[in-house]
Amino acid sequence: MSIKQQETLDAILRQGTIPADTSVDEQRRLLRELLSAQPLPPDLTVTTSTLGNVPTAEVTVDGVEPRHIVLYFHGGVYVLGDAALSADLAAQVGRRTSAKAISVDYRLAPEHPYPAAVDDALAAYEALLQSGTDPADVIFAGESAGGGLAVVTMVNARDRGLPLPAAAYAMSPYVDLTLAGETIKSRRDADPLLSPEALSARVADYTSGQDAGLPLISPIFADLSGLPPLIIQVGSHEVLLDDALRLARAAALADVEVTLDVVPGVPHVFQAYHPILDEAAAALDRAGQFLSARLDVVA
Amino acid sequence: MSIKQQETLDAILRQGTIPADTSVDEQRRLLRELLSAQPLPPDLTVTTSTLGNVPTAEVTVDGVEPRHIVLYFHGGVYVLGDAALSADLAAQVGRRTSAKAISVDYRLAPEHPYPAAVDDALAAYEALLQSGTDPADVIFAGESAGGGLAVVTMVNARDRGLPLPAAAYAMSPYVDLTLAGETIKSRRDADPLLSPEALSARVADYTSGQDAGLPLISPIFADLSGLPPLIIQVGSHEVLLDDALRLARAAALADVEVTLDVVPGVPHVFQAYHPILDEAAAALDRAGQFLSARLDVVA
Repeated sequence: MSIKQQETLDAILRQGTIPADTSVDEQRRLLRELLSAQPLPPDLTVTTSTLGNVPTAEVTVDGVEPRHIVLYFHGGVYVLGDAALSADLAAQVGRRTSAKAISVDYRLAPEHPYPAAVDDALAAYEALLQSGTDPADVIFAGESAGGGLAVVTMVNARDRGLPLPAAAYAMSPYVDLTLAGETIKSRRDADPLLSPEALSARVADYTSGQDAGLPLISPIFADLSGLPPLIIQVGSHEVLLDDALRLARAAALADVEVTLDVVPGVPHVFQAYHPILDEAAAALDRAGQFLSARLDVVA
Repeated sequence: MSIKQQETLDAILRQGTIPADTSVDEQRRLLRELLSAQPLPPDLTVTTSTLGNVPTAEVTVDGVEPRHIVLYFHGGVYVLGDAALSADLAAQVGRRTSAKAISVDYRLAPEHPYPAAVDDALAAYEALLQSGTDPADVIFAGESAGGGLAVVTMVNARDRGLPLPAAAYAMSPYVDLTLAGETIKSRRDADPLLSPEALSARVADYTSGQDAGLPLISPIFADLSGLPPLIIQVGSHEVLLDDALRLARAAALADVEVTLDVVPGVPHVFQAYHPILDEAAAALDRAGQFLSARLDVVA
């Protein structure tokens, strides 16, 4: 079934490809349309809240008593998306780790360029710690730019002497805004969603004249030493495939415990399509096992 | 406990480091001494046999009725080691996949340079298929050079139109005999077992004047497309760390399903130390899950 599923999904996504030459407002609308095409599962409750003055969407699953926290960072190249749009994906991680998901509504570019998102992510984590949450009960997770922001926030927290979460989960992380990955061009035709042009059009919104290679913008250039265990998942039909490969490499060379899952033939953040794609639920299950083992070890 | 375990293991291994400047016979003796220091578990039975005129060591576990086959390739830079010396490690894979392990005693250099090992590995697999074994019930596994030989044999089998095994498991694979990996030098001091000098001293024994970059000698330079799912595990304290990273990358770029586990602070083929190292059993368990899921899917 899965090749058929992949082809169906590919065709759906190609209709939703975000064109490079449209306005930010139009791109935001298109992404919202794409992501809200799937209704939220009826057992989810999404509540607006704040962490350290940063708006959040808290996602709970009816009947599940959470023992841990997933601090979740949504995707959207630091320009699009919002916390609630990623509620289902955040909850999918929460379901598999007995955790409440808190999705962070960090500020977006171009209205708020770097370091606004980085500052908000750190402020949310600091507030979580100050509320008395044990960092050993926290995992970071995120998709696309949110996967990058999860890594950035660990680097940032480490540099400020804060305790780190138990583990982190990056789905199709966007971690090189210099767009130097080999697959940025080589997977252009295979990727139904993202293109070098679409990415490139939004980089300047976020960097706003600063060097895209700064470690807190593009964490593959950061020193990753001392980071907690990291699971990275990516589809092979992604222009961002090489972002994931190079992040895994950088983490390994920094003596970080890292697991990389490459799933062939599937698109960017394929986990989001768990209702129609077998590989998605399987990947979420593997991540859940990896994360739960680290939560249990340190708990 | 684990940092203490890692340090103890490191100290033990540093006493057993194989010096670069000794004879092949002396190196064979030293490796045998190192590997036979741990007695075989009493529930293992190792039986000498053959597959297609290639000698093998068949490893069964008392009381376990195998439903699958692990075709196992031992390590030793294509010069040292033998099938029986890796019997416990082969059986550790077999225990976790309900499989009988068949460890292949391929011919070694310098007496038998490339392609003797490659020919023997393929002949053993072909004989297994001709005996009526369903390839969907077979996994390949191997450590160090044996991890490389497992990949080489899949490439070779694919090129000859043979059906491929359900999955493969490479522990600390040695897949670049040109020794071009970044960590060949950068992890020299961290690695308690292998050194660039010790590897380099034995490369010519195997290549015997042929190009070390040939795809069936160094499979990171091979076209890996069409290969079955592959799990690669490596310690971060290895000169061969980058062999594993680059193999994962090459597989991903060829649209192969690949999982890479990097375990920090542990040495070459750390899985062999499962009686004294927590990370070893955990890694074998993760590999067992990965492999079993693929055996069940195709069975």
